[in-house]
Amino acid sequence: MVSVSERLQVKKLNFGRAENVGDDVIVESPLSVRVNGNRIATMMCSPLDLDYLVIGYLLSAGMIDQKSQIESLNINHEDGIANVVIPGFTPDRLSTAALTSGCGKGEIYLEVIRHCRRNITEFLLDPISLQSQMSDFNKSSELFLSTGGVHSSALSTGSEMLFLHEDIGRHNAVDKVIGHAASSLVTLEDKVLLSSGRLSSEIMLKAARCNIPVVVSRSAPTSLAVDLARRLNITMIGFARGNRMSIYAGERRIDA
Amino acid sequence: MVSVSERLQVKKLNFGRAENVGDDVIVESPLSVRVNGNRIATMMCSPLDLDYLVIGYLLSAGMIDQKSQIESLNINHEDGIANVVIPGFTPDRLSTAALTSGCGKGEIYLEVIRHCRRNITEFLLDPISLQSQMSDFNKSSELFLSTGGVHSSALSTGSEMLFLHEDIGRHNAVDKVIGHAASSLVTLEDKVLLSSGRLSSEIMLKAARCNIPVVVSRSAPTSLAVDLARRLNITMIGFARGNRMSIYAGERRIDA
Repeated sequence: MVSVSERLQVKKLNFGRAENVGDDVIVESPLSVRVNGNRIATMMCSPLDLDYLVIGYLLSAGMIDQKSQIESLNINHEDGIANVVIPGFTPDRLSTAALTSGCGKGEIYLEVIRHCRRNITEFLLDPISLQSQMSDFNKSSELFLSTGGVHSSALSTGSEMLFLHEDIGRHNAVDKVIGHAASSLVTLEDKVLLSSGRLSSEIMLKAARCNIPVVVSRSAPTSLAVDLARRLNITMIGFARGNRMSIYAGERRIDA
Repeated sequence: MVSVSERLQVKKLNFGRAENVGDDVIVESPLSVRVNGNRIATMMCSPLDLDYLVIGYLLSAGMIDQKSQIESLNINHEDGIANVVIPGFTPDRLSTAALTSGCGKGEIYLEVIRHCRRNITEFLLDPISLQSQMSDFNKSSELFLSTGGVHSSALSTGSEMLFLHEDIGRHNAVDKVIGHAASSLVTLEDKVLLSSGRLSSEIMLKAARCNIPVVVSRSAPTSLAVDLARRLNITMIGFARGNRMSIYAGERRIDA
């Protein structure tokens, strides 16, 4: 059985007083992903729901377009290796998958345009309902409460949270949600992605590649992420805490 | 002139009231690093102190052992490209630089042992002085105050903070500090690295490769980072906030 946190002996200092106590520390574990025998990535992650992580990673990185392309997926927890068989997968695919595979800033948008379509989903979300969900979401990360060291991500219909995943990495948490959706035949085109982490370009590209129309976080966005969201027609909300939120892009989907 | 934050128009919702306001958003920018004409990495970063970032990255990733190996470094801010000339640099070096270049968990420690020595610096730090510095450090990130989106890292003698850097990425902030030290001929063997970010294995390996004996953060550590710190004889402190801190490794350097 793989554990997601580990109790370690720690010396705590508090106002000059020292004591030795047991402390829950989040487990960080490497997972090497091999496709058809070739290593394509090694992730440092929380060793939980690794099948969702691998499937979500392959989808959100644009290496596959649908889960059915995966013929088999075997995870060796002991060695930290995921063996994936994808018929027809060529290493060439790798070089086009990364946002920044180009040579400089100018090529980024070419890459994006080549790999992502503008999101065309139209629906209207109630901000009060979104706020109440973010409030539940911000409270619901159990691992964070005990270890202080994880990010979480969840999928929501806009009025109902479907599932939540945690990981030491914010990218991994999002990938687990995407992999879970793909494994449960839950469509992403009409859902809201919740995240505890900063909204960087990479998170927005994951959303774009998987056709997620709305991304909400309690944290800050970056300028590049806002720009991508606006170009790709994704609704992007940051600083969603308590009764507040800041809408950076795609505000027409929010009934403000 | 490259800017580190950008004012964007945003719709803010606050208790149901909506208003359009200008909001400072942190700039995220790609930097492609080329050594002798070959691209070795692309970083998403804050476009500030990029020379320090590149030098620190090359050192902390174990690609070079000292700054003097760099014959020239030219940064094209417009295109986001850093051209580095390192005589004798071979692409082979790349494959041994990553922690997780191996095939599975078992090989990680072999890699570490191959590339990092146990830290042998002996000195005794006053925890009260460390706490007061962390308190200054936690307050001193200006970009965080305006954008909410950055990490910071600083170098300290244990009683005095020498310099501080900020970046959207916690790894980048640490690399900027390492690059700054190398560029100013400041030794790292007797210094304390402060970080706002989580202490993961990658941060501890950066410290180990650059012989930094003490790492302090206001955030949580991971289990793998604690294990590395203990094996490599690095003092590692987490949750350093207010009058508290948790010592996870190397407590003999703290006068508790």
